[in-house]
Amino acid sequence: MTVITGLTVHDVRFPTAAAGDGSDAINRGDYSATYVVLETGAAQGFGLTFTNGRGNEITCAAVEALKHHVVGHEVEELCTAAGARTLTADVQVRWLGPEKGVVAMAAGAILNAVWDLRARLAGQPMWRLLAELPTADLVAAVDFNHITDALTPHEASAILDQGREGYRERLEQAEELGFPSYTTSVGWLGYDDEKVRALTRQAVKDGWTAVKMKVGGPIDDDVRRAGIIRSELGPGALLMMDANQVWDVDEAIANMERLVAFDPYWIEEPTHADDVLGHAAVQRALGERCKVATGEVAANRVIFKQLLQAGAIGIMQVDACRVAGVGEVLAELLLAAKFGVTVCPHAGGVGLCEYVQHLSFFDYLRVGRSMEGRMVEYVDHLHEHFTDPVRVEGGRYRLPDRPGYSVELRPESVARFSFPGGPVWSA
Amino acid sequence: MTVITGLTVHDVRFPTAAAGDGSDAINRGDYSATYVVLETGAAQGFGLTFTNGRGNEITCAAVEALKHHVVGHEVEELCTAAGARTLTADVQVRWLGPEKGVVAMAAGAILNAVWDLRARLAGQPMWRLLAELPTADLVAAVDFNHITDALTPHEASAILDQGREGYRERLEQAEELGFPSYTTSVGWLGYDDEKVRALTRQAVKDGWTAVKMKVGGPIDDDVRRAGIIRSELGPGALLMMDANQVWDVDEAIANMERLVAFDPYWIEEPTHADDVLGHAAVQRALGERCKVATGEVAANRVIFKQLLQAGAIGIMQVDACRVAGVGEVLAELLLAAKFGVTVCPHAGGVGLCEYVQHLSFFDYLRVGRSMEGRMVEYVDHLHEHFTDPVRVEGGRYRLPDRPGYSVELRPESVARFSFPGGPVWSA
Repeated sequence: MTVITGLTVHDVRFPTAAAGDGSDAINRGDYSATYVVLETGAAQGFGLTFTNGRGNEITCAAVEALKHHVVGHEVEELCTAAGARTLTADVQVRWLGPEKGVVAMAAGAILNAVWDLRARLAGQPMWRLLAELPTADLVAAVDFNHITDALTPHEASAILDQGREGYRERLEQAEELGFPSYTTSVGWLGYDDEKVRALTRQAVKDGWTAVKMKVGGPIDDDVRRAGIIRSELGPGALLMMDANQVWDVDEAIANMERLVAFDPYWIEEPTHADDVLGHAAVQRALGERCKVATGEVAANRVIFKQLLQAGAIGIMQVDACRVAGVGEVLAELLLAAKFGVTVCPHAGGVGLCEYVQHLSFFDYLRVGRSMEGRMVEYVDHLHEHFTDPVRVEGGRYRLPDRPGYSVELRPESVARFSFPGGPVWSA
Repeated sequence: MTVITGLTVHDVRFPTAAAGDGSDAINRGDYSATYVVLETGAAQGFGLTFTNGRGNEITCAAVEALKHHVVGHEVEELCTAAGARTLTADVQVRWLGPEKGVVAMAAGAILNAVWDLRARLAGQPMWRLLAELPTADLVAAVDFNHITDALTPHEASAILDQGREGYRERLEQAEELGFPSYTTSVGWLGYDDEKVRALTRQAVKDGWTAVKMKVGGPIDDDVRRAGIIRSELGPGALLMMDANQVWDVDEAIANMERLVAFDPYWIEEPTHADDVLGHAAVQRALGERCKVATGEVAANRVIFKQLLQAGAIGIMQVDACRVAGVGEVLAELLLAAKFGVTVCPHAGGVGLCEYVQHLSFFDYLRVGRSMEGRMVEYVDHLHEHFTDPVRVEGGRYRLPDRPGYSVELRPESVARFSFPGGPVWSA
C-alpha cells in the first residue's frame, strides 16, 4: 500500500486566445490546466483538468478544497469507487455540483493523478494497467450509484470478462496499426477561408482521412466553409462538424438539413449540452444521415446514461478530465458497450490527446473491442510541453509505452506559463 | 441609468453541522453564504448564494472571476438577458459549467444583488417590482437560448399579459391571506424519533398543516418515522418526503411503494438530480398516488425544460440562487406556467426563505395566478441574521413590504461569522 504524502496544484495557462486557435462558436480562450502533482516517498503522480483561461484559479481552489481526502490516504483505496466518492460525495462540497462543474473537474485532476501514480508504480502505461487489471478490480472502480437501471455490476463484469477473449490478438493489432485519429486543426472559426483551404489541403497531404470543422457561425458561412473542406477532402474522407452548443433544437435540425449535403459523419454538440431530449430530437430528425455526438462537457455517468437510454447519440465523446477521473470514465465506456454506441473521445485543449489515447486503446483491448468507426481526436497544439507527448503518424496514434497517464508537464513549461507569476504572464 | 461602482464578496459560514440541523441523506453542512454587496454612489445591492460549508471559498473565487462584468456596468443592462449572458456565457469561464455548478451559483449571487439594487432604487419589494414591470421588460430579462422548442418569447408575452388580468384582486388576496407554507424543521435525519414526534406535535400546535420529512436512510427507519409523523399530523394535513437523491431509480420506485401508505403529497429528489429520465420513470410508476418534485440543484432552464417535456415532475422547486439569478428564475416560472406544473420553491439554507417568498408572490400575481397546491418551504433557521427576515404566521408567509430582495445580512452577523477570520471561526 502506498500513502500519498503531498499534493501541489499549479495554475498553468497558455496564451492561445490571441491567435484564434481553439476558437469556436462559444469559446475563445487561453488554453489552461489545473495541474496536480502528488508525492509519495518514492514516486510522483501527475494529473490535470483542462480549462479555458479565466477561472482556472477557481478549479485550483476546488483542488485545494478536496486535498484532504487524498493526502494521507492510500493510492489503491482512492482507485476504488468508495475512495473516489470521498471526493465526489463529500457531504459539504457535493452541494457545489453535485458531480458537475468545477468540483467534478477538480476531482478529475486529482483522481487521474492518483491513477497515474498507480500506473507509474506498476511500471505500466495507463492503457495497459487498465486493460490487464482483474475484472473485479475494474468493477470496484466504477461508481454504480444512479446507473443500475442501465448497467449492473454483473453486466459490467460480463463485458470485462468477455474483453479478455482475443486480448493478445488485439494488442498485436494495436501495436502494429495504432489507433485511427482525426484532426480538428483545419477549421476553427477564427480562421479565414484561405487558411481553412490551405490547412485542409495540408492535412490531406499529411495522410489525414478524417477532419473536423467548427460550425455555428452564420449558417451561410458554415455552408461555404463545409464546401471548401469537402472539396479539398474529396468524397471518401470523413468530415465531422461541431456546433459547440450554439443552436436551439429546431435551429439545429434546420441547419443540419443544409449541412448534410456535405455528408458529415457526425454533428457534435448540436444544442445545449444539458439537453438530452434535445439531442434525441436532433438524432431522430437526422436518422441514418448523420450521427449525433456529444460528451466533452457531460459532467458524469448519469448524463451519459440518459443520452444512451434516450437514443440521443450515435457517438459518445468521453472526456478524461471533465468527469471525476478514471473510475467515472470506466462507467461511461461500459455504458457505451452495453448500448452498442461508438466511443470517440474528446481531445485537444491541454493534455487531452495525451490522456484519451490511453482510454481508446483500453476500450479497444478490453471493452468495446473494435476500432470500426472509432477515432481519437487530434489537435496539434501544446504537445511540446509534455514529457511524454502523443505520437501521431499518418493519421494514427501510436501505442504509448512509458509508464503513467502521459500528462506530466515539463517543469520548465510549468514555470514559464504559471499564472500570474510566470514570465509569460508577468511580462 | 445607474452604474455599479464596486463589488465585495464575503465568505459567511454558520456552524450548523454539529447540531444535525439541515442533515439529510447526503448533506451535513455548515450553512453558508457567498454574500455579495454592490455599491453605487447612492445605494447598495445585496445578493447571496447558499452553500454547505467547505467550498464556500470556491464560490467566492467564482464571484471574483465574474466581477469585471458588473463593476462599471449599468444596473438596467445587467437585468436583461443580454446583460446576464456577459456572466453566464463568458467565452472563458463558461467552460467551467457550462451554466451549472459554482459559476452559475456565483452568477446567481451577483445578478440577484443587481436586481436587489434595482428594486431598492425603485423603492419596491422584489415581488412588486417584477409583478408590475411591463411585459416587454420581463421578456427581455429571459434568456430564451435553448428553450425555444418549449417556450417562445411570444408565448411568454401572452402568459405575462394574461397575468395583468385580475391583478388587483390577487394582490388584495395576497395582502390578506399571505402565501401557504410548509415546515421542514420536524424531520431531519439527524433527529431521533422522540425529537421528530415532539417537533411534529409542536408544528401542529403552531398551525402548520403541511410538513416535510427527510427519507433516504434505511427504509425501515423511513417507514417508522413516516408513521410517527403521519400519526401526529392526522389524515388531513399534507406530508411531503425528500430523499435528497440517495436512491437509484428502481430503488426509488420500490421504496415509494412502501411509503405511499402514509399518503405523501410529493416525493422530492427521489434519485440523482441530473436524471430527468429517472424522475420520469418514478413519476410514471407512482401515477396519481404521489407527485414527483425536484429543482433545488437543477442548474438552469434547460434542465427544467426537460423535466417538463418528459412529464417527470408534478412539482417544480425553483431555487433563487442555484441558478443564474432572477432572469433564469423567470424562464423557469414561465416554463412551469406553460406546462401547467405547480411551483413550490426550495427554501431553507441561508436566506432562501427570504428570497423565494418574493418569487411565489410574483408567480401568484403575474404568472401562475393560483395558490392551489402551492407552498413556499419554511425552515426556522438563521432568519435572525437578516435585516428584513421573513414573517411567517399560522403557517403562511406574509407579503414583504420593504424594498429589495430581502437577503441583506446584518453587518454584525457578517463580521461574526466571516470565515476564517470571524470570531466564531477563529476561536
